[in-house]
Amino acid sequence: MQFAEYLSQNEVEQIHDASLEILETVGVLVNNNNARDIYSRHGCKVDTETAVVKFPRNVVETYRWAFGPSFSFMGRDPQFDRTIPDDRPVILTGSSAPNIIDPDSGEERRATSKDIADIAFLINELTGYDIFSISTLADDAPADQFSVSRFYPSLKNCLKPVRSNTVNMQDLLQVLELGAIIAGGKEAYKERPIISHHYCPVVSPLTMDVKSLEALMFLTEKGFPVYGSIVPNAGLTAPMTLTGTLALGNAEFLALGVLMQMIRPQTPMIYAVLSTVADLRTGDYAPGGIENGILQMAHSQMARFYDVPSGGYIGLTNAQVNDAQCGYETGMNTTAALLAGADMFNMGGLLGGLMTFDFAKAVIDNEIALMLKRIHRGVEFSKENLALDVIAETGPGGNYMDKMHTFEHMRTTGFLPNIATRDLRGPWEEQGQPDAHSRAMNEARKILTRDNPAVFSEAVDSKIRERFEGLVSGNAGWEK
Amino acid sequence: MQFAEYLSQNEVEQIHDASLEILETVGVLVNNNNARDIYSRHGCKVDTETAVVKFPRNVVETYRWAFGPSFSFMGRDPQFDRTIPDDRPVILTGSSAPNIIDPDSGEERRATSKDIADIAFLINELTGYDIFSISTLADDAPADQFSVSRFYPSLKNCLKPVRSNTVNMQDLLQVLELGAIIAGGKEAYKERPIISHHYCPVVSPLTMDVKSLEALMFLTEKGFPVYGSIVPNAGLTAPMTLTGTLALGNAEFLALGVLMQMIRPQTPMIYAVLSTVADLRTGDYAPGGIENGILQMAHSQMARFYDVPSGGYIGLTNAQVNDAQCGYETGMNTTAALLAGADMFNMGGLLGGLMTFDFAKAVIDNEIALMLKRIHRGVEFSKENLALDVIAETGPGGNYMDKMHTFEHMRTTGFLPNIATRDLRGPWEEQGQPDAHSRAMNEARKILTRDNPAVFSEAVDSKIRERFEGLVSGNAGWEK
Repeated sequence: MQFAEYLSQNEVEQIHDASLEILETVGVLVNNNNARDIYSRHGCKVDTETAVVKFPRNVVETYRWAFGPSFSFMGRDPQFDRTIPDDRPVILTGSSAPNIIDPDSGEERRATSKDIADIAFLINELTGYDIFSISTLADDAPADQFSVSRFYPSLKNCLKPVRSNTVNMQDLLQVLELGAIIAGGKEAYKERPIISHHYCPVVSPLTMDVKSLEALMFLTEKGFPVYGSIVPNAGLTAPMTLTGTLALGNAEFLALGVLMQMIRPQTPMIYAVLSTVADLRTGDYAPGGIENGILQMAHSQMARFYDVPSGGYIGLTNAQVNDAQCGYETGMNTTAALLAGADMFNMGGLLGGLMTFDFAKAVIDNEIALMLKRIHRGVEFSKENLALDVIAETGPGGNYMDKMHTFEHMRTTGFLPNIATRDLRGPWEEQGQPDAHSRAMNEARKILTRDNPAVFSEAVDSKIRERFEGLVSGNAGWEK
Repeated sequence: MQFAEYLSQNEVEQIHDASLEILETVGVLVNNNNARDIYSRHGCKVDTETAVVKFPRNVVETYRWAFGPSFSFMGRDPQFDRTIPDDRPVILTGSSAPNIIDPDSGEERRATSKDIADIAFLINELTGYDIFSISTLADDAPADQFSVSRFYPSLKNCLKPVRSNTVNMQDLLQVLELGAIIAGGKEAYKERPIISHHYCPVVSPLTMDVKSLEALMFLTEKGFPVYGSIVPNAGLTAPMTLTGTLALGNAEFLALGVLMQMIRPQTPMIYAVLSTVADLRTGDYAPGGIENGILQMAHSQMARFYDVPSGGYIGLTNAQVNDAQCGYETGMNTTAALLAGADMFNMGGLLGGLMTFDFAKAVIDNEIALMLKRIHRGVEFSKENLALDVIAETGPGGNYMDKMHTFEHMRTTGFLPNIATRDLRGPWEEQGQPDAHSRAMNEARKILTRDNPAVFSEAVDSKIRERFEGLVSGNAGWEK
């Protein structure tokens, strides 16, 4: 399909050129010593006093040709492996919310490892999701098991690829060890690394942190799947024009990308520049704003210029409840980005920006995900699908309902929703006027009161629990 | 901008070709005698026994070159005139719902002329809407004033263009007379016809009715703005493939289009083929389904092939309440169609398919409309907007909030919503957890308790009331 594009080829090149100018003349503040060394060894100019790295144009131009053109996520079950851009659109949950709407009380509270287990089980069962990006933090995690308390309940309950971050190197090594036990050993894990890592090593404008960058560099060196998100916020950390924010975010992507290629040429990458515009009436973060989709459209076009898959946090909502706002913010931004060529969407399950997970929202977003996949499938043009013989057979004023052709295509042509109602008002009132939220909660309850077929074997589980003493239970499911 | 396109140029031509084949070999059942005569006089083959008209290819090819390339809607105040495609996206209300959610009780009931007056006032004030397509029927209309009881309260309370249909010729003549009184005479009305007419003269598959076609032919002859919608429903009145439905709907558009051009060459047209896919689990009409947007994308591409503006009913919802479903169905289908080049969107205010108007839905859809217009505006690429000087001045780790550049652009770069909340959960809970529906109802109440600046002068109003004895009051506004 031909994607929607705001920019002419010449404008794409002008943005690329502006990014090169930013990197060459303004530079990037790099707080990680090792990263500065790598940049320096590969031709960048490092100011040792200010820690600012400047990038001669030809250094960027050289290393950008090494960008890997695809990125793979692997799951415990290989049937759930996904590669972008080939398997686009790939749908993920939103991740790392501190809070959750308690499914019983409906009140917000801190999320726990038990919640993560439940969400992992739910995402395993909802067919619209491809990857589980660990949706919440775990408030009950032991101090020395912060990340493993999130990855263990996730991997235990979900056969799809699992993706998240870690807070420091010790934490990261624990998570890799967990992965190796599940995979059946270190070598097996290297073959099929079933954990994908994600960090935000760039703090806009033009700054790189220490710890996230350390993890990203380590994983890049080892050849494990990792990518970084870049999140400029126009008006606070980026210029208050979309074009300026594009140029800045693009420069930051290039700075991070060339570092990864300097470490390991042809490292797979994702162009995950997730620009937003701040609402300066209040200073609020507004990831639900339509500018998020507009900017993503343009970033996806830049990603095609670099031949790198694109996507990330698209379709978040600022709504606090599953109302119309939550529907149109998630729906409009993802639709726009999809039609402009974005490959990956961290869109599911979160309310209030990135703050709160909600089970019903995750189920509703699964339906939006399936609609996006239907958009991607398109009109399915073919001579046969023109159905000229059926049109002739039916004739003027005829009926298609009783045709074999209709029967053969009725389950595949249209997406048949599970949550959206198509009932007339009378029958809908008789059912007690259920809205999308309550229908989605019913669906979540139906799933989470079943047995989970995804859980580890006893053998694997006891190996893990032996290694990580005092580990959270990781068990999923709601009372039947 | 480059639109999203499913079809290659060759596939577009194959669909055109398939439509020609349908018109040539299957034909159209034309129940209106005058229409059959016109077709016959211009080279079509009419079977007088079956009333089926067949279209030799070259007849269609000849008359399609006459299609007018733009369509204008005029309002009482010329500042609200809109022409498509130039002024795209043009946003309208959905129309002719029999029912309304009572704004006081929240219960569904029959709609009245007083409701129409209130809705017209609301639409006049909501800046996202360009045209008022009369949203409901009027249950209190006197038997001999069915349509004038809808047009009078609409025109009285709204300076924007008003669009709707009529049920028979007597009704249509009354409405034109009403228009002439408001315009200040017949000649003045001919100069600026402030009413736009719309009919559904084609009943899929391949059938033309009597009365709607009569009105459309009359208005075409007179040169008044009129267009027809075509609404094939895959699985019931069209083949259960999107490509087949495209070919059939396109054939029906061509049949209607060439008739209008036979009557008056270069008559302005709108490609308003609004295809849906039936949900054959129940037989339900599913205009909220994502296939509606997908089909609209392809139809818009066909419209560009014919150099005719496109659009119509896009963004309807099957939801019965302003929940997440209502948000994503309206938001996703309109976003998809916009990015594929649709020019016109009858999207506002209706729940339950086409059955029920809701004030809050109209206010929410106004916000979606403004987001669509922001998408249309795009990234606003320019050298100046690259903001390279501001990026250099701010440097790595700096802050854009205190820059004059930010101050200058903060009200125009991002769309600043009125209904969507961006509050954190704490403040939102303190406000009583208002959802989008309740915020929108508050906004409707704020508008409808003001005085309406749009109403007619006393002189015009008494002229109208003299002419139409017993006419409904047409007064708008809610108790303060």
